[in-house]
Amino acid sequence: MEPEALRRRLAAAGQGHLLRFWAELDEAGQRALCEELQSLDCEALGACFRRAMEGAGAADSDKVDGRMEALPRAVLGSALRDAGRLPEWEREGLHQISQSKVAVLLLAGGQGTRLGVSYPKGMYDVGLPSHKTLFQIQAERILKLQQLAEKQHGTKCVIPWYIMTSGRTMESTKEFFLKHNYFGLKQENVIFFQQGMLPAMGFDGKIFLEEKGKVSMAPDGNGGLYRALGAHGIVEDMEQRGIWSIHMYCVDNILVKVADPRFIGFCIQKGAECGAKVVEKTNPMEPVGVVCRVDGMYQVVEYSEISLATAQKRSSDGRLLFNAGNIANHYLSVPFLRDVVNIHEPQLKHHVAQKKIPYVDITSGQLVKPDKPNGIKMEKFVFDIFQFAKQFVVYEVLREDEFSPLKNADSQNGKDNPTTARHALMSLHHCWVLNAGGHFVDENGTRIPAIPRFTSGKPDAITADVNCNLKDANDLPIQCEISPLISYGGEGLEKYVENKEFHAPLVIDENGIYERVKNSV
Amino acid sequence: MEPEALRRRLAAAGQGHLLRFWAELDEAGQRALCEELQSLDCEALGACFRRAMEGAGAADSDKVDGRMEALPRAVLGSALRDAGRLPEWEREGLHQISQSKVAVLLLAGGQGTRLGVSYPKGMYDVGLPSHKTLFQIQAERILKLQQLAEKQHGTKCVIPWYIMTSGRTMESTKEFFLKHNYFGLKQENVIFFQQGMLPAMGFDGKIFLEEKGKVSMAPDGNGGLYRALGAHGIVEDMEQRGIWSIHMYCVDNILVKVADPRFIGFCIQKGAECGAKVVEKTNPMEPVGVVCRVDGMYQVVEYSEISLATAQKRSSDGRLLFNAGNIANHYLSVPFLRDVVNIHEPQLKHHVAQKKIPYVDITSGQLVKPDKPNGIKMEKFVFDIFQFAKQFVVYEVLREDEFSPLKNADSQNGKDNPTTARHALMSLHHCWVLNAGGHFVDENGTRIPAIPRFTSGKPDAITADVNCNLKDANDLPIQCEISPLISYGGEGLEKYVENKEFHAPLVIDENGIYERVKNSV
Repeated sequence: MEPEALRRRLAAAGQGHLLRFWAELDEAGQRALCEELQSLDCEALGACFRRAMEGAGAADSDKVDGRMEALPRAVLGSALRDAGRLPEWEREGLHQISQSKVAVLLLAGGQGTRLGVSYPKGMYDVGLPSHKTLFQIQAERILKLQQLAEKQHGTKCVIPWYIMTSGRTMESTKEFFLKHNYFGLKQENVIFFQQGMLPAMGFDGKIFLEEKGKVSMAPDGNGGLYRALGAHGIVEDMEQRGIWSIHMYCVDNILVKVADPRFIGFCIQKGAECGAKVVEKTNPMEPVGVVCRVDGMYQVVEYSEISLATAQKRSSDGRLLFNAGNIANHYLSVPFLRDVVNIHEPQLKHHVAQKKIPYVDITSGQLVKPDKPNGIKMEKFVFDIFQFAKQFVVYEVLREDEFSPLKNADSQNGKDNPTTARHALMSLHHCWVLNAGGHFVDENGTRIPAIPRFTSGKPDAITADVNCNLKDANDLPIQCEISPLISYGGEGLEKYVENKEFHAPLVIDENGIYERVKNSV
Repeated sequence: MEPEALRRRLAAAGQGHLLRFWAELDEAGQRALCEELQSLDCEALGACFRRAMEGAGAADSDKVDGRMEALPRAVLGSALRDAGRLPEWEREGLHQISQSKVAVLLLAGGQGTRLGVSYPKGMYDVGLPSHKTLFQIQAERILKLQQLAEKQHGTKCVIPWYIMTSGRTMESTKEFFLKHNYFGLKQENVIFFQQGMLPAMGFDGKIFLEEKGKVSMAPDGNGGLYRALGAHGIVEDMEQRGIWSIHMYCVDNILVKVADPRFIGFCIQKGAECGAKVVEKTNPMEPVGVVCRVDGMYQVVEYSEISLATAQKRSSDGRLLFNAGNIANHYLSVPFLRDVVNIHEPQLKHHVAQKKIPYVDITSGQLVKPDKPNGIKMEKFVFDIFQFAKQFVVYEVLREDEFSPLKNADSQNGKDNPTTARHALMSLHHCWVLNAGGHFVDENGTRIPAIPRFTSGKPDAITADVNCNLKDANDLPIQCEISPLISYGGEGLEKYVENKEFHAPLVIDENGIYERVKNSV
C-alpha cells in the first residue's frame, strides 16, 4: 500500500503516475522508490520546468547573439602579451599558497561514458609511460606547488582539494583515493561532496521512470555545484581554513595547471572576485563557449547560441571578435562564492536541453528507447555566476601549455581523445626539456630536430619510406614525461637535462631519469 | 654478356656492382636493366651525392635557424586584413582568366601509400555524399572559373591544366581522366608530363638494387618539377598559349582554390614573379615549413630545420614571429618560370634524407629490409626557387576556407585524413549555406544552431544522452556538399538557399537540390 501522503503530494503536482507500478515492486523496491520520491520537491520542480520552458521559447529578439560585446581590454590578462608580468603574478600566487589561502575545487561528477568506460573520468589512464591517471597527475601538481611555496617562503602550507562528485562517481572516487593513499596528500585536506540530481521530464513536465521502481535522474549540471556547496557546508569549511582564493576546474584536462599561481596572482592583483581562464578561439566553428559581455554583464555564450555571422566577426587585427574560449577553468574569491551560494544561487536559470530519454511507458509498462528527443534535462551552468561579480577578469593562455581535454574515445573521434591528450602532455614535456637545454638523439646518436620527421617505423612501411615524399612525416611526438613532482610548469629542469643528450622515451620522476636502453628493440 | 661500354662506364663511376647479377637475368630482364642503367648519368649522380653529403654535414654555424628573419609587411597580403581589397584582386584574377592568361600546374606524382592505397592520391574518394575524387573536384573548380570569367567578360576562355605525374602514377592517372572524359574539360587543355627519378644510394654513394635486375629508383622530389618542365617543353607550350600566370598546387588539399582569382589578382597587382599562399602557423610545434627571409633571400625553412626557441618566438601582438605556414601553393609568372627552368634549375640543391631502403645484398643476392636508415634519398624542393625571384609576395588565407590536407589513413592518425578532409569541406559548405541566408532544421523542424550540439545518435548511446553533461557534443558536422559547378567559393548561392530551410544531408549540384527525405531512417 503506497504511502498516502506521498501519493497526494505527487498527484497535486501532476506526478501521480510515478506510483503506477507500486504494486508490482517488492518491499525493498517500494522502500527505494518511496525514498527517492520523498527527496523530490515536485512543486519546485514544476516551477523550474515552467520557467525553463518559457526561457527556451524566448523570441528571437531576446536571443543573446545580437547583444554580445567583446571583452574590454581592462579586464584582460594574457600569458603572451603580459609575459613581462608573469613572474610578479607567479610570486603573488605562490605567496598566497604559502599562507594556505588557496584551495582547489574539482568538478568530477562525470563518468567516462563517452570515453567508453563506466568509471569516473579522473581514473582514466591515457597511456603515458607512467600510466598515471588524471587524478594522480592533478594530486602531484598540488603536492609540487605546496613544496615550491614552502621552499620560497619557508613555511609548510596546505592547498585543500574539494572534489565534487555525482551519485554515480562518489563511491568509486573515494575508493580510488583511499587505495592510492590520496597520492601523498593528507586525507583531511581532500574533501569530497556530492552534487544533486534532477529528474528528466517529458515535454509535458511529467517526470520519467527509467524502471518501474526508479525515477530517471541525472546530475544537475556543473552549476549544481553551488547548491551542493550550500548543502554540504563547504564554504564554511573554506572559511574555517582561512581560504581566500579558489581555483575551480574540470577533471578532464590533462594539462590543467591546478591552483595556477600566475592565474591566482593575476586575479589577486586585479582585485577580482571572479575570473575565467580562456584560450584563443581561432576557428569560428569551434564548439567552445565564448566569454563576453551581454547587456553589460559578463557571461559565457555557448557555441550553440551563437549565429555564424557573429562567430565569424573579426577585429581589425584579424582575430575573431569573440575569441575568449571558455575552458571551464575559473577563479573565485571565497567571499564571492559565499554570496553566490547564499544569495544568488536561486537566480541561476536552468538551461534546457532536449534529450532522448529512455522511459517506462505508463500504459504498457514497457521500457521505450526513443529515437528522437522526447523530453528535457535541466541543468545549471557553473559560469552563470559571472554576472554577479563586481570585479571580473579574464586570463588568456596557450592551448599547448594548458589545455587538452579528454572527451571522446580514440575510436570515436580524431580530437580530444586519449591519444591527443597523451601526445599533448608528452609534446609539452619534450619542449620543457629542450627549453632547459637538453637534447634528444636517435639510435645513431644524431640530434633529433625540435619538430622531428617521424616515419612509422613498422616493417610494412619500409618500402613506403623510400617512396614517400621527403616532407611527409608521421606526427608521433618524441615520448617524454616529467612527473609533476619534478616540475610543475617546466621550471627547475636545468639541473637534470642541461647540455645532456637523451634517447626517447625519456621519463624523469622522483626516482630518477629513465631513457631508452640502446639495445632493446 | 653484359654490354662492355656500360660495364666500363659504371665501373669508372664506382657503380660496377649494379651488373653483379647480370648472368642470372633472362633476356628480357637484361634488356630492361640495360635500359635503366643507360638512363643513369652516374658521373653527375656521383657529383650530386658528394655535394649533397657536404651540405648535409654543414657546421652548426651554417644552420639556417639563427639567420631567419620575419617577412616584411610590404610583401604580405592577407585575406583577412586586406578583406577590403579582395573584390579588386578577384576582378583582376578573373580578368586574367578571361583572357586565357592563367594556367594551373598540379603536382601529382605521389601515390596514396600513406593513405593505404596504391593508386594516385588524386583518385581518392574521401566519402563525400557525391563520392567525387580529388581530381574531379579540382577539374570542376576549373570549369566553374572558366564559366564565371566568361559570364563576367563575355568571352570563352581556357585554363590549361598541366599535371605532373611520376613513373608510378602516369598510366593510372591518364586512364582515370580518359575514363571520366576529363570531367568535362577538353582533352587538349589537360597536359600530362612525367617527373624524373633518382636512384637511392647507400651512405657510401653506391646505388642500390631493389631486385637483381632493377635499380632502386624514386621520384626526384617535387622540385624535380623544373627539370621535367624543361625535358617536356612545357614552358614553351605555356608561351604558345599566351599564358602569363601559373597557379601551382599539390593534389592532396581537398579545399584547394584552383587558379584562385584573388591570389592571382594580388600577385599581378604586386607585380610579383613568384608568390606563396600561406596559412597562419599558431602552434610552435606544428610540422609545417615557414616562409621567411634568410640572408635577405626568401625561402621556406622546413620544420625539421627550425630550433624550438626560434619556433616559439613571438611578435608583440602575440602571434608567432615565423607564422607563414607553407602549404605548397604558389604563384609563378611564366617568364620567371622560364628563367628557373633554363637558368636556375641546376643551382637548386639536393636535399638529403636518410632512409631505410630495401636492397639486394651484393654478396648474398638476398633482399634485405633494414630496420634503421641505410642510405639516402636526394630530392629538390619546389619552393627553393623563391630566392631567384626579384619580386616575391606572400598571401595569407584561412585554413577553414582553403586548406585541409589528406596525408594519412583514418586509422593511422587523427589528423589530415579522409575524415578530417571530408568534414572540412562539408563544414565549409554548411557555412556557405548559412552565409547565403539558408537554414538547417532537424527532424522536428527546429532550426539547428550554426555550431550544433550533436549526439552520436546510435541506440547504445541513448542512455548516455540523458547522462551526458549538457555541454558535451559529438562534432560530426551538418552534412552539406555544394558542387564546384554551382559555386566556386561560396558565391551565388542566394538563389538556391536564401530564406529556405533544409534537412541535412543537403547536396546542391547541377542536377538540383537534394535534402534528406523525412521518413527515411
